[in-house]
Amino acid sequence: MIQIALLGFGVVGSGTAEVLTENKALIEERLGCEYNIRYILDLRDFPNSPFGSLVTHDFNDILNDPEVTVVAEMMGGSHPAYDFTKKCLEAGKSVVTSNKEVVSTFGVELCELARKHGVRYLFEASVGGGIPVIRPMINDLSSNRIHKISGILNGTTNYILTSMRDLGASFSDALSEAQKLGYAEANPSADVDGIDAARKIVILAALACGKLADPKTIPTEGITAITLTDTKVAGAFGYSMKLIGHACVAEDGKLTAFVSPRMVPAANPLSRIDGVFNGILVDANMVGEVMFYGPGAGKLPTASAVVADIIDVIANREAESKPILWEAATADDMAEFSEYSCRRMFIVKNASVADSLPSAEVREVEGVYGILTESMSEKDTAEAAARMGDALLSVYRVL
Amino acid sequence: MIQIALLGFGVVGSGTAEVLTENKALIEERLGCEYNIRYILDLRDFPNSPFGSLVTHDFNDILNDPEVTVVAEMMGGSHPAYDFTKKCLEAGKSVVTSNKEVVSTFGVELCELARKHGVRYLFEASVGGGIPVIRPMINDLSSNRIHKISGILNGTTNYILTSMRDLGASFSDALSEAQKLGYAEANPSADVDGIDAARKIVILAALACGKLADPKTIPTEGITAITLTDTKVAGAFGYSMKLIGHACVAEDGKLTAFVSPRMVPAANPLSRIDGVFNGILVDANMVGEVMFYGPGAGKLPTASAVVADIIDVIANREAESKPILWEAATADDMAEFSEYSCRRMFIVKNASVADSLPSAEVREVEGVYGILTESMSEKDTAEAAARMGDALLSVYRVL
Repeated sequence: MIQIALLGFGVVGSGTAEVLTENKALIEERLGCEYNIRYILDLRDFPNSPFGSLVTHDFNDILNDPEVTVVAEMMGGSHPAYDFTKKCLEAGKSVVTSNKEVVSTFGVELCELARKHGVRYLFEASVGGGIPVIRPMINDLSSNRIHKISGILNGTTNYILTSMRDLGASFSDALSEAQKLGYAEANPSADVDGIDAARKIVILAALACGKLADPKTIPTEGITAITLTDTKVAGAFGYSMKLIGHACVAEDGKLTAFVSPRMVPAANPLSRIDGVFNGILVDANMVGEVMFYGPGAGKLPTASAVVADIIDVIANREAESKPILWEAATADDMAEFSEYSCRRMFIVKNASVADSLPSAEVREVEGVYGILTESMSEKDTAEAAARMGDALLSVYRVL
Repeated sequence: MIQIALLGFGVVGSGTAEVLTENKALIEERLGCEYNIRYILDLRDFPNSPFGSLVTHDFNDILNDPEVTVVAEMMGGSHPAYDFTKKCLEAGKSVVTSNKEVVSTFGVELCELARKHGVRYLFEASVGGGIPVIRPMINDLSSNRIHKISGILNGTTNYILTSMRDLGASFSDALSEAQKLGYAEANPSADVDGIDAARKIVILAALACGKLADPKTIPTEGITAITLTDTKVAGAFGYSMKLIGHACVAEDGKLTAFVSPRMVPAANPLSRIDGVFNGILVDANMVGEVMFYGPGAGKLPTASAVVADIIDVIANREAESKPILWEAATADDMAEFSEYSCRRMFIVKNASVADSLPSAEVREVEGVYGILTESMSEKDTAEAAARMGDALLSVYRVL
């Protein structure tokens, strides 16, 4: 009998208890062994929950119980989630998590700790909610060198951008609606400022190149400045505005990783990933482009991924699993962002200010002009934007 | 040093040799051990290939070499591919394959043989080419009961249907173009008659329910009867015509599996999977809908999946991997197809013949009428179609 402990009984934690219970017969049959949830750590009590009797307020109950071999951390935030994870790994317990903040900040140390103690640290649920993406990138694209990852990694912002495009809602109206529906939190900063997406893209980038960048230091733009006019200009070119986490690994191994709104052409499958769904497009040297699509958040979808990790830990408990080992990305590992090049969309009041741009196409939309350029570097884009002064309304990267 | 043998040096076989060579350093680093291609079995000689010296015409060279522990079968066709696979498994060699004909026909026996001899039989490349789908369904959706699978599983037919929709090409012109581009074979029957998709959907269905249906006995319709008018009617409703392999597992465990053209609403992510790409939408009880997308065929993409399986075999050679075990589906395991229900699109010369249908919406397109119905069973649909006589041009399932 495998004894499991859950850290945190919020949305994902309670979903995980539900998946482990609802599909127990099926999962035990697949595993060929039985399991049991022995503890649920939370500050609160849940007298009306069927799992209420499992609740403990003392982490040491879990840490000191040698029969607990698998711990699922779903507390959110860095502390005490990181501290508890570290103690569990050091005590020879495998840990699985949905906590992208901990993985993106402390992943190097925690993966190494897991290796050192012969246990696992798995985090399928930290990116893309229920979408299988991390294990497939490790196992199924193992024959490939991964060049590039572009992902719609945050359901809240994608819901807002979809409402702006399809319903003509303003950013603030779309945000209010998302909050009303429970898709956005009262303090939406982590989502709308791109912080959540930044955490996720550094995790995916680390799977591609083995170097974990600090999510706080990668260029990160959110969606708060996007106007309805901007989305209409995108539409006039057949593009959709999406918040994209982007990572690429150059021939010399240098990593570029950033988060920003981007205009996505209709031919790109990410352009039709709408609402709260996520999609992750991976470009690898042998397979070409593959995409993983599904619910990027939500109680049961995210719990589905947490439980897949629990099953992986249990199924492979006697095997020597290949550990994930990352290094912390240094400044030397990162490409010069000012040289990053892609097509741009300048949105201007006056088309003549754009005469010097390598422009490919100009369209007028409600009295403003969208100017689609050929590929330009960050540096050249910033210089051109500065020259335009007040005539410039905004400028976007095109995917 | 792991010794590998390749059976077949056609498109996928030569691609596999290329992936194993091109990404050798990377793969060996991931594996933590070295490998070597020792033999390539083919009837032909390849004096100008860098792999020419590895070619043997005698399967016994491989079978009798105890150092060869991994065999990749990429011969196509049932015989001798099945016979060689069986002998390899019996000799304690793991086999990986891209051969959907062998997996869908002999999968029950070959999976059991692998278990019995403590080796692996893996077939990621048999469905969806390079798209990670089989291993993710097994490993990442392991916490779920899979209800339903809908897939665009054949790139050739999807290319043809995309050309019909977007370029207004007739079926025969689109087929000729596909043949010219190498997307369709001189004898295109396996693709355009749905046979290839039938083999793939029974494999996916077996992953969901453990029962492998005989691909020759599931209802299978191809795309040869689809007219340009039909695709225009689909377009008038905002639908795309796609060849869909569909499987669902009912509450009572009974399996429905079939292949047919279907009209796919724009809101369904499969509607925008175009050209030679494949997409597989999986509906599972905890995660909801997830989709896997990518190149469904082609030399290097398919080889990428074959090599991922080779890596899996090598990486887990000392572990007790959970075997895939299927049973052959009996008539009792299958749901009554006449009761399968979905919305229908009747295309008729005269709208009045459809008066008795549970119709939801009627549109005229170039003098014919598309009549979209509420959900109807196969039986009721067939009876309604018979009553319409000559006034009926065609009737399609809606996804």
